Amino acid sequence: MGISNQVVFSCRKVVQSTREAIVTLQKRNPAIQPLLAILQAGEDDSMLEINKKMAVKIGLNITQICLAKECNEDDIVEELLKLNDDPKVHGIYLHLPRGSITSRVLNTLKPEKDIEGISDLNMGRLIRGDLSKGFVPPLASAVLDLLENHDAPLEGKTVLLVGGEGPLQLAVQCLIERSGMVTLKSHWSSKTLQAQVMQADAVVLLDVGNMYVPPTWIRPGAAIIYSKPALEKGIALYINVVRSCSRWLKGQEYRPWHLRSLKLQPLTPVPSDLEISRAQIPKPVDQLAEEIGLLPEELEAYGRSKAKVRLSVLERLQSQPNGKYILVAGITPTPLGEGKSTVTVGLVQALSAHLKLNSFACLRQPSQGPTFGVKGGAAGGGYAQVIPMEEFNLHLTGDIHAITAANNLVAAAIDARMLHEATQSDKALFNRLVPSVNGVRKFSPIQISRLQRLGIRKTDPASLTPEEINAFVRLDLDPSKITWQRVVDTNDRFLRKITVGQASSEKGQIRETGFDIAVASEIMAILALADSLEDMKNRLARMVVGTSCSGQPITAEDLGVSGALAVLMKDAIKPTLMQTLEGTPVFVHAGPFANIAHGNSSVLADKLALKLVGQDGFVVTEAGFGADIGMEKFFNIKCRASGLRPSVVVLVATVRALKMHGGGPNVSAGAPLPREYTDENLSLVAGGCCSNLKKQIQIAHLFGVPVVVAVNVFKTDTQAEIDLVCQIAKDCGASDALPCNHWAQGGRGSSELAQAVKEAASKPSDFQFLYNTEMPIVEKIRTIAQRVYGADDIELSPEAKSHNNCFSFTHLSLSHMPDKKGAPTGFVLPIRDVRASIGAGFIYPLVGTMSTMPGLPTRPCFYDIDLDPVTEEITGLF
Amino acid sequence: MGISNQVVFSCRKVVQSTREAIVTLQKRNPAIQPLLAILQAGEDDSMLEINKKMAVKIGLNITQICLAKECNEDDIVEELLKLNDDPKVHGIYLHLPRGSITSRVLNTLKPEKDIEGISDLNMGRLIRGDLSKGFVPPLASAVLDLLENHDAPLEGKTVLLVGGEGPLQLAVQCLIERSGMVTLKSHWSSKTLQAQVMQADAVVLLDVGNMYVPPTWIRPGAAIIYSKPALEKGIALYINVVRSCSRWLKGQEYRPWHLRSLKLQPLTPVPSDLEISRAQIPKPVDQLAEEIGLLPEELEAYGRSKAKVRLSVLERLQSQPNGKYILVAGITPTPLGEGKSTVTVGLVQALSAHLKLNSFACLRQPSQGPTFGVKGGAAGGGYAQVIPMEEFNLHLTGDIHAITAANNLVAAAIDARMLHEATQSDKALFNRLVPSVNGVRKFSPIQISRLQRLGIRKTDPASLTPEEINAFVRLDLDPSKITWQRVVDTNDRFLRKITVGQASSEKGQIRETGFDIAVASEIMAILALADSLEDMKNRLARMVVGTSCSGQPITAEDLGVSGALAVLMKDAIKPTLMQTLEGTPVFVHAGPFANIAHGNSSVLADKLALKLVGQDGFVVTEAGFGADIGMEKFFNIKCRASGLRPSVVVLVATVRALKMHGGGPNVSAGAPLPREYTDENLSLVAGGCCSNLKKQIQIAHLFGVPVVVAVNVFKTDTQAEIDLVCQIAKDCGASDALPCNHWAQGGRGSSELAQAVKEAASKPSDFQFLYNTEMPIVEKIRTIAQRVYGADDIELSPEAKSHNNCFSFTHLSLSHMPDKKGAPTGFVLPIRDVRASIGAGFIYPLVGTMSTMPGLPTRPCFYDIDLDPVTEEITGLF
Repeated sequence: MGISNQVVFSCRKVVQSTREAIVTLQKRNPAIQPLLAILQAGEDDSMLEINKKMAVKIGLNITQICLAKECNEDDIVEELLKLNDDPKVHGIYLHLPRGSITSRVLNTLKPEKDIEGISDLNMGRLIRGDLSKGFVPPLASAVLDLLENHDAPLEGKTVLLVGGEGPLQLAVQCLIERSGMVTLKSHWSSKTLQAQVMQADAVVLLDVGNMYVPPTWIRPGAAIIYSKPALEKGIALYINVVRSCSRWLKGQEYRPWHLRSLKLQPLTPVPSDLEISRAQIPKPVDQLAEEIGLLPEELEAYGRSKAKVRLSVLERLQSQPNGKYILVAGITPTPLGEGKSTVTVGLVQALSAHLKLNSFACLRQPSQGPTFGVKGGAAGGGYAQVIPMEEFNLHLTGDIHAITAANNLVAAAIDARMLHEATQSDKALFNRLVPSVNGVRKFSPIQISRLQRLGIRKTDPASLTPEEINAFVRLDLDPSKITWQRVVDTNDRFLRKITVGQASSEKGQIRETGFDIAVASEIMAILALADSLEDMKNRLARMVVGTSCSGQPITAEDLGVSGALAVLMKDAIKPTLMQTLEGTPVFVHAGPFANIAHGNSSVLADKLALKLVGQDGFVVTEAGFGADIGMEKFFNIKCRASGLRPSVVVLVATVRALKMHGGGPNVSAGAPLPREYTDENLSLVAGGCCSNLKKQIQIAHLFGVPVVVAVNVFKTDTQAEIDLVCQIAKDCGASDALPCNHWAQGGRGSSELAQAVKEAASKPSDFQFLYNTEMPIVEKIRTIAQRVYGADDIELSPEAKSHNNCFSFTHLSLSHMPDKKGAPTGFVLPIRDVRASIGAGFIYPLVGTMSTMPGLPTRPCFYDIDLDPVTEEITGLF
Repeated sequence: MGISNQVVFSCRKVVQSTREAIVTLQKRNPAIQPLLAILQAGEDDSMLEINKKMAVKIGLNITQICLAKECNEDDIVEELLKLNDDPKVHGIYLHLPRGSITSRVLNTLKPEKDIEGISDLNMGRLIRGDLSKGFVPPLASAVLDLLENHDAPLEGKTVLLVGGEGPLQLAVQCLIERSGMVTLKSHWSSKTLQAQVMQADAVVLLDVGNMYVPPTWIRPGAAIIYSKPALEKGIALYINVVRSCSRWLKGQEYRPWHLRSLKLQPLTPVPSDLEISRAQIPKPVDQLAEEIGLLPEELEAYGRSKAKVRLSVLERLQSQPNGKYILVAGITPTPLGEGKSTVTVGLVQALSAHLKLNSFACLRQPSQGPTFGVKGGAAGGGYAQVIPMEEFNLHLTGDIHAITAANNLVAAAIDARMLHEATQSDKALFNRLVPSVNGVRKFSPIQISRLQRLGIRKTDPASLTPEEINAFVRLDLDPSKITWQRVVDTNDRFLRKITVGQASSEKGQIRETGFDIAVASEIMAILALADSLEDMKNRLARMVVGTSCSGQPITAEDLGVSGALAVLMKDAIKPTLMQTLEGTPVFVHAGPFANIAHGNSSVLADKLALKLVGQDGFVVTEAGFGADIGMEKFFNIKCRASGLRPSVVVLVATVRALKMHGGGPNVSAGAPLPREYTDENLSLVAGGCCSNLKKQIQIAHLFGVPVVVAVNVFKTDTQAEIDLVCQIAKDCGASDALPCNHWAQGGRGSSELAQAVKEAASKPSDFQFLYNTEMPIVEKIRTIAQRVYGADDIELSPEAKSHNNCFSFTHLSLSHMPDKKGAPTGFVLPIRDVRASIGAGFIYPLVGTMSTMPGLPTRPCFYDIDLDPVTEEITGLF
């Protein structure tokens, strides 16, 4: 009989091809190592020994989890859950007593790692014929492999199955029949066994044990297969481990997303933002995450429609090329805003849901304060929104709350420290700061950092001299030179300037200080610029809170609080995943106050998104304010910090704002619009285009980035006005200029814009910074003032030293004078003061007055906001 | 042939029994209505018509979702997801073209609603023989039903399957074989069909079409079954809908949980709390939720180990009897704390993981401030903890942040309103408060409420008289009578007393005010007492923020802010589910400052937990401070608000605290313990037992509740000391008294306590309030002072009117004097002031001085707290 030879040959072939498959995988991914986990009860038996040897031969790694022989179901489930979650494990083999493999155990086993194909789901997939995802029981596929490699083709022929039972027998039968053979079944005890064997074209003997079929029964040319579980099962198991590993790798490769977009049926007139948002049921966020290639373990859901994404994604997709990076900026706006966020959201809806290109929007998280102050959501608007918009505009995933907590812990530490220093001797302070715990006294790591900054290279508290103790225990903060403010995420104007410490318990240590809105905290700027947990932690430690009486800067680390800040911010550093009205992905992360920081969403969200969209994809992000102030900071600060380079600038213009720059009357919130803005007026439009729009295009070109102008269309705009804007924009050097109607129509209304952006992004861009970091600070400021803002010169009294720079103009003009519209020239820029955010890494000149705490109007919009206690629906929010 | 008769008979029987099953279901659950959803492409066809008629006959509801004929996969998936999530739908039938039922569609279909049994998972369950959860294809079970009802038993007999293919055929075959029959298979085109039919004991004809088997082929007595998909499938489908509905109901019934407890392997010496917490991997919170009977749609995960639970659970489990309600209170503690939370956690670990009784702990959420101030976590300690303890002690799910935001919005609204009133005429205020929007002027609902309170029954703004306008627009708050304070969740002592409004933009409207710690906000007290969203909203609206110059109370609703507050608090009202070290469930919800509020966790968490544990289960909750102050408030305030009645009080005592009350020297945090506390000293122990412990037992008995004393054992306690405490406790009337060792051993160390609690809870208790709500406030205070605290009388200057009452003693003594230990008597209680929390619904007399804002010590514990940026692990947190 040549049968057993055939088996051995086949085994050798499989070993060979599996080994080759591993080598191929490792060529492309040197770090990968297919790993089989064996979950066993008790010691190795001989079968396990053989299998392990075979695995070594193939080049497969094995890890064994040995439970006690008398382990119970809970023990098994607990270990299985750990193995399920371990991304290094590609396959799990349950080497357990049969009785232990209960339904619960099988249902716990992740089907993607069930290389034995014994879980219900994998069994069902086999029966239904969907073999692309699950695994087939190794013995069944080994049998099929042998039948298919038989000398004579067996299609249409009869295969007799002898012995076996239950799921495995059915699996074998199902596979054989699906290959076009006809199955018959018999039992070892059947009286007609000999007759049946003699008629069969192939005989498969299952559960062989001590049974055997005499060679004389076999028809010449017929195949006979003895199942030898120990060997064949082992080998086929390894094939499945390698297959699982290769599937896992494949899952991480770039692919066009199969994104289920949510349908829009826009109504006319367009309902309120909240009504539109509520009419759309968001996809479950875990489903969205799966669609864009995130792994379950990379997601931390916060409710059903938002989730934090872990930074480990960056490491996993390290070798993935980035997508195209698109910046949405605006011309100088009216106080009503010109719809940059709306354009951003509309553009990704068009790119993802209509052009079917992987794309991501990266937006800022809005402060909660203005939500209850003056109307205007930040989630986009109309049919171009992030949903659920109420969650976007309220607590979200708590990042701003974390910033508030961290910021105010620093403030509390400052005042408490000043009080304790004022009321205690050096010795008392030292004894308390470095207490004896169980007889041992030592410095905490944070204290050792401070010692090192002081030039004291000692680690034994007992060895410090009195002078060193004095230097160590006294921060000696100058109360008049504390720059750190407290924050709240509420528009609370009465906290702008306050006196603290008036209770008798504070012993007269009163001082004047104030609160800013939470997003103005330096910690927010740090969150936006950090590119890892470590980077954030270091920046937090470096934050300067004030100056000592001897003029030394005092940092958060000097206060001993930097570790606690990192702990408070550890979840905030993960971007929040949400979706647009059409079900396309959005990151919401960080929203530094544009008046005094750079006003852009986070570097980390952009980086994650660029990896997730992959090389043919698009990430659209937004700059604060107008293109001058917002875009300048995006390029000079954010791009410098991140190393990312934009491919295209989308410049948002509205007929309304252009008319204003062309000389139209004042526009203000609350008041009705003058007629110039609702009737056609081409000369005002032309005036605005030739001043502000032209200048903004030129600014983008200064940085070497192509510009596409997006005219955000309002109901009252006429075709002639829109055409005029597009014409002048192209004359001024824009790559393209188009109207867009996302507000009324969703992504479909921005399809042409998306197409134009795609084309502009395919051309080479030639990005360059306006200045290099070595340039003296005065020169940096002068360069920006002259080249970006068109000032003749600057006039400043600098007192700063740093490595970066950030401008704080008014956002309502290209100058420091909010009433100068168009593109003012011929002015000298007065620099009132220069402030430093050392932790975040920039300094910012102050020009004019700048409020860092908004107020509430007479009728704040909270009057309209309500909650239906039965339906839990919010009303009146935008 | 009697065959077709047999089919019809069987059909009629099934219709009958299904109708009866529905009636039975509805008898127990009148609201229930089994609902079949049909997802179809295009119009009804004749098969659907027949099936729908049959459904009506059975008494089944049907809902049809008709997609367009040319619908795509995305459309189907979108509808399926909605049906999956709809708890009213019990079964989904896909009446779609075969090609539309793709793998993705089948994988989307929830197996629990896949009444056709066609999803991979259900198919796999059938093959593996696990029929308890999934569904079997109706045709297959109809066939089996007929075979099993055949006149002659068919076990061991041969059944010939003719025709059919794929999964359905395999399902039929599998079911038949599992019933002990032997299957043979043949095809309609087989040449030996007649011979096979003649030999078979039963013949099942699948895919009949136009084919037929001549009656003469059938062996006498053999069964023959023609499959008639339209009919049998239809009927069996309805059986499955009813089965699904009944399973759903069963899932909601009380059952002992099958809780997978996490194993503990306690180490000696006991490591730090953080190390213990981190060494245990928590169960995924969705798994825990499933184990305790929560439905997936009732859960809102926040990361992997905590989730908010929706209040809809209360409605779903309305008819479920409550479990036993256990209160953990303590004797008057030392400043070091005596471990009430640890006992609470240890007790539920013992009840759930060791006694296998459904049980829940309900704990307070701790303020984040002290986490960074003075050491001491609130998650329990040692081997009786809530995990992950760092999440418990930090942001958790943002409830306190929401309270801070809501509280400070009220504060900002107060000051802004005073400024606007000071600087505007009545007319200007009115025009701004009731603006013309698109030419229409109207009051918001919140403004109409204010008008009604003012006695103005008008809804048209134009109809108000100048006097009415004046009354409406001017709250006329007296700056010296504003009781509302701002809050932060930071220990920031310099904010205790401050002056606000000093910026020039506030036009000289300065005033003195202060910040409290966030948990001292009245909004926290409301969160803890509210029993629904509506109740919370009403309480928020009623909160009094100050008094007008004419002496009228001004509420949050007068400020127009109450709707916004409800919106900010809408997620905070849902309790947060976490777990103990042994994997048993815990609710963390609300933590009102015990100094000025009632100091107990939320009513809603207790109510939810009592339903979830069911009638034989236990809910263990904790009172703040000692049994006097904490327990008194628990009974008189919390139980009155909730209507819940406790079964047992567990009174926690430590040898250390008893020695102190027995006359031992002072104990203070930071200082080493005097020798009296580390060496055996029976007379001090006896002294403490006969004073403080005895009094606390008596207080519980005043309310008619049995007491079990738990001696929380410390390493230095001697057996004689412990025995003495237990003996005296029992002599004083405790039902039982036992030592417990949960700190060192986990739940196992509290097993005896758990057993004692179980026994005490099985006895009838006779709960009664100390006073009724109609009693004059002075009498209420006197009753408590005399009966609970042992005062001779009170001395007070009341200025309150309200319906409830709350005591604010120092928590370190049974009197108002922290240094009076034991059980002082013979004193007159001076009531310094009486304050009202109208929204929360209680007033609280102030006795002595009471800080509502903790401070930071010289070396706050943030010095030790750090984050490893690579492993993301926190160090130094407790």
